[in-house]
Amino acid sequence: LDNEDPAAIRELLANIHASEVADLLESLPNQDRQRVWWLIDPDSAGDVLAHAQESVRVSLLELMQPQEVVEATRSLDTDDAADILQDLPEALIESVLLAMDEQNRQRLASVMSYPEDTAGGLMDLDVIPIRADVTLDVVNRFLRRRSEIPDNTDSLVVVDRDNRFLGVLPLTAMFLNDSERTVGECMNTSAEPLPATLPAAEVAKKFEQRDFVSAPVVDEENHLLGRITIDDVVDVIQEEAEQTFRRMAGIEENDLFAPIWSSTRRRAVWLGINIITAFVAAAVIGRFEATIQQLVALAVLMPIVASMGGVAGNQTLTIMVRGLALGQIGKSNIQPLLRKELIISFLNGLLWALVVGVIAYLWFGNHLVSLVIGAAMVITLASGALAGALIPLLLKRIGVDPAIAGGVLLTTVTDVVGFLSFLGLAAIVLALV
Amino acid sequence: LDNEDPAAIRELLANIHASEVADLLESLPNQDRQRVWWLIDPDSAGDVLAHAQESVRVSLLELMQPQEVVEATRSLDTDDAADILQDLPEALIESVLLAMDEQNRQRLASVMSYPEDTAGGLMDLDVIPIRADVTLDVVNRFLRRRSEIPDNTDSLVVVDRDNRFLGVLPLTAMFLNDSERTVGECMNTSAEPLPATLPAAEVAKKFEQRDFVSAPVVDEENHLLGRITIDDVVDVIQEEAEQTFRRMAGIEENDLFAPIWSSTRRRAVWLGINIITAFVAAAVIGRFEATIQQLVALAVLMPIVASMGGVAGNQTLTIMVRGLALGQIGKSNIQPLLRKELIISFLNGLLWALVVGVIAYLWFGNHLVSLVIGAAMVITLASGALAGALIPLLLKRIGVDPAIAGGVLLTTVTDVVGFLSFLGLAAIVLALV
Repeated sequence: LDNEDPAAIRELLANIHASEVADLLESLPNQDRQRVWWLIDPDSAGDVLAHAQESVRVSLLELMQPQEVVEATRSLDTDDAADILQDLPEALIESVLLAMDEQNRQRLASVMSYPEDTAGGLMDLDVIPIRADVTLDVVNRFLRRRSEIPDNTDSLVVVDRDNRFLGVLPLTAMFLNDSERTVGECMNTSAEPLPATLPAAEVAKKFEQRDFVSAPVVDEENHLLGRITIDDVVDVIQEEAEQTFRRMAGIEENDLFAPIWSSTRRRAVWLGINIITAFVAAAVIGRFEATIQQLVALAVLMPIVASMGGVAGNQTLTIMVRGLALGQIGKSNIQPLLRKELIISFLNGLLWALVVGVIAYLWFGNHLVSLVIGAAMVITLASGALAGALIPLLLKRIGVDPAIAGGVLLTTVTDVVGFLSFLGLAAIVLALV
Repeated sequence: LDNEDPAAIRELLANIHASEVADLLESLPNQDRQRVWWLIDPDSAGDVLAHAQESVRVSLLELMQPQEVVEATRSLDTDDAADILQDLPEALIESVLLAMDEQNRQRLASVMSYPEDTAGGLMDLDVIPIRADVTLDVVNRFLRRRSEIPDNTDSLVVVDRDNRFLGVLPLTAMFLNDSERTVGECMNTSAEPLPATLPAAEVAKKFEQRDFVSAPVVDEENHLLGRITIDDVVDVIQEEAEQTFRRMAGIEENDLFAPIWSSTRRRAVWLGINIITAFVAAAVIGRFEATIQQLVALAVLMPIVASMGGVAGNQTLTIMVRGLALGQIGKSNIQPLLRKELIISFLNGLLWALVVGVIAYLWFGNHLVSLVIGAAMVITLASGALAGALIPLLLKRIGVDPAIAGGVLLTTVTDVVGFLSFLGLAAIVLALV
């Protein structure tokens, strides 16, 4: 980059797709990112912003004047423009909106009045409404008078005199039916519109199940507001999976390209929560100092039990968290699932208890330690599976995302049960001998 | 379910979408699943199979005769039918193919000749090819003679006399242009077709970046083979994210609804690998039995260091694994990313070294133990970040999915470094005192 002529870079940027420019900007360190940003054609700046990740978008928006933001968002779909505006500081949103013309301002305000993660927040306003009583020929002539038809338009939306949703007319129906027939005769009335307040996750599910390309959005009184297109839903699906993924590791946002200081702060929170868990486990061990003093082999073997319990519990937890997120787990199948997880962990507990018991015996030549570690293994793996299944259910019931806190709570359980069962059983056995 | 009249269930099933029937079947225990399966209208059985998850689909296919499979797949898109056939045992695939009519057999064979996870394996053959030299009016009359147009058709594909790809004609262009103009004048020649051998992940990326609804697929000589539609790409995106997610927890397939025995076996593999890690860590502790004997507090505190190192390393690992999967990490930004992760872990190491040091002092009243645990914390967190960043890169270079083995390798490093640095420093300090 350093050796390149700015004109050559500008040329290169002009010849690749906006999404690729966004990828490129994301992968650059902050300083280089700014230098490249100034070389981008202002006409495609909005498209690039729309494709960039939030943290990168915020860093680029900081470089822009309100008027530049207005210019950049002018040619975008309303939903993309709203996403960008929502990343601006409160005060700037106001001035950007004021610098827009009346029509754009109203369109943006209507999308921004719904939360970003609802059907209303995802919709754009590029819907083409038609009336049921006109003929296809009239529709044809109406379309021909337009200079363009919005991307991803696979159907027109049929409304009544009061803009209330009646049905959809697929574009393909225009070719298959006689042009003298009316829209009302050819439209599909079984298509259900999406309520503007429907959560984004539900919207994604509907699109996936029904293979929609676009779907109309209505308010509570069934008035047509806009439409959601598949490209925005793909982003939602992608983001949902990413979010669960990151939350399981205790990272709230994608901080691959975030500044060091904010990454450090966000990750410190998770480490801080983990340290509480770690000290709880240490406190359990602390109760058995005398036992360990008596037989140091226990200190050597105890992390094995806790670690295996953690891994087994995490397998159950992962399956439950995704199953809950995808809506595959409900009242009807909770019981068989719980039973299954318990049986699996019991079988694996027995298997690995045997393996660990034999190795421990070969190592320390003490059959009592072998018996104790085997028994502790079965107890800990079963507790891990039980905790891995129940913790997500409990978190969900109290309204917390199971992905966020599940891992730490699980580790607390498996560490405590692991150390307690192993050292506790050892203390009892040693006292008896 | 038990109290319900079969006729009532049949009625219910007939009134919900095939994807919802599939969800329902997935959520039922195996026995109930079979009972419900027989109540499904044979006409929608194929659609239900296409929407079901692989493990459930396999269990349902086992109940079916070859002729029933032929009937069920007859009305499906070629790609969906191919997916279902590929889940049958080898011997049955043959007999199902033989029971089909010639045309269907050839269509299926052409899709099944490409691996499932390439553009060729994802494509269906419902593409409508047209020639460049005809007028839009001719195309219009050609479409009108068809009884239906395949779902998700947003454009027609323009080919030459030898079926070679020339460009695409969006359906909307039919409305916007004069009907006397030729296809060649109105078509979009900038659309690139996808090579049949393109990996599914790359296909998904193209769709995401370019907001495609459908894209044509060609062979090496640019002959039109078929098309990929967005609904199949959504499945790929979903599956990609799920796969990484599951692999991080050591679960190869989604086994939420798999039989107990196969789940147990698959998860046992991961536990077996983890036990090697656990014994390596135990061996490290074993080297310091004498030191622990001298000061049992060390046994109480040692899991804290290893646990914090694991959590910090896992944060870096998660970010790297997803960054690599999404193609956000390359040669140009490896160095700054590595530096960033090291700085973050160093800052967090210092912070939590201080906290743990103070608590350890308050607990055991031994300032040497405090110093040792603080130093070990900084060393372990930095090693965790380094391992979390480098392990995925190394695995990727040798061609292994970083999600599969990353976690176990990381834990091995953080456990070994955690125990070694803490107990090793303690041994040195105790020897000096």
